[in-house]
Amino acid sequence: MRIRGVASEDWVRIWPFLREIVAAGDTYTWDPDVTEERARELWMPTPPWRTVVAVDGDTDGDTVLGTAKLGPNHMGPASHIANASFMVAPAHSGRGVGRALGEYVLDLARADGYRAMQFNAVVETNTRAVALWRSLGFDVVATLPEGFEHPTKGFVGLHIMYRRL
Amino acid sequence: MRIRGVASEDWVRIWPFLREIVAAGDTYTWDPDVTEERARELWMPTPPWRTVVAVDGDTDGDTVLGTAKLGPNHMGPASHIANASFMVAPAHSGRGVGRALGEYVLDLARADGYRAMQFNAVVETNTRAVALWRSLGFDVVATLPEGFEHPTKGFVGLHIMYRRL
Repeated sequence: MRIRGVASEDWVRIWPFLREIVAAGDTYTWDPDVTEERARELWMPTPPWRTVVAVDGDTDGDTVLGTAKLGPNHMGPASHIANASFMVAPAHSGRGVGRALGEYVLDLARADGYRAMQFNAVVETNTRAVALWRSLGFDVVATLPEGFEHPTKGFVGLHIMYRRL
Repeated sequence: MRIRGVASEDWVRIWPFLREIVAAGDTYTWDPDVTEERARELWMPTPPWRTVVAVDGDTDGDTVLGTAKLGPNHMGPASHIANASFMVAPAHSGRGVGRALGEYVLDLARADGYRAMQFNAVVETNTRAVALWRSLGFDVVATLPEGFEHPTKGFVGLHIMYRRL
């Protein structure tokens, strides 16, 4: 596995699993019926945002195992706080792709001069993600009660997670 | 004082004080040098966002005392959490404009079906705002340490405030 900046031709390999994750409606605060055009805008925003992919090379190009985006969570006098989002292709879960992307993005954020990283919306029932971010140094600084409407569990809490860099 | 939906002709009466507040760099997480075009996009976004103004009528039209915007703080399964922002013209401070706008926007949010309201970035040194929002039922659910770079006080905390509706 290696991690590199996204190329426009990667999108066709991101969209199938991104659509699947968003459509499930249990981890992402996106419209589950998001269009491909809107999803591409949201996932590959303009600079200073950066999008990266974790890939395996194969004979007909790179297989995208997962992807992340990094950018400012606030503007102006709070623009030193980064935000990041992560998606791992379900077909490639359990291989440490999320952790590798997390570590890579934390280093990238430091290199970009950010002083902290904030996740605005980690669904509390997404226990794998919560555990991964805790293991990478994030704390749950607040939980918005009933902040997320889960498709089977009803209203569940939405964590705000944060760490200094 | 009355509160109504913004009209496009109100912008020329909003921009002078909005620019002053943002340029001061001590309360808003906006680029202090924001352009008028970008400021208008940010303050009067497209639906479902709504922008309102608190006005006094006078002989040559309405004087804008303050303004607020209301919309979803998250998308998809968390879009029941509202966000709102407020600006009161410094020339009209101390008259209860902020409180009136706050009460109006809370009612509007309930009418729009939101279940909670979240402020993402209340500067901890903006004690008047923090006290106003507390008096209107908001709690500080987290404080991001050194989350805001104040022009004279250095890095100060950034509160996340929240209340159910």
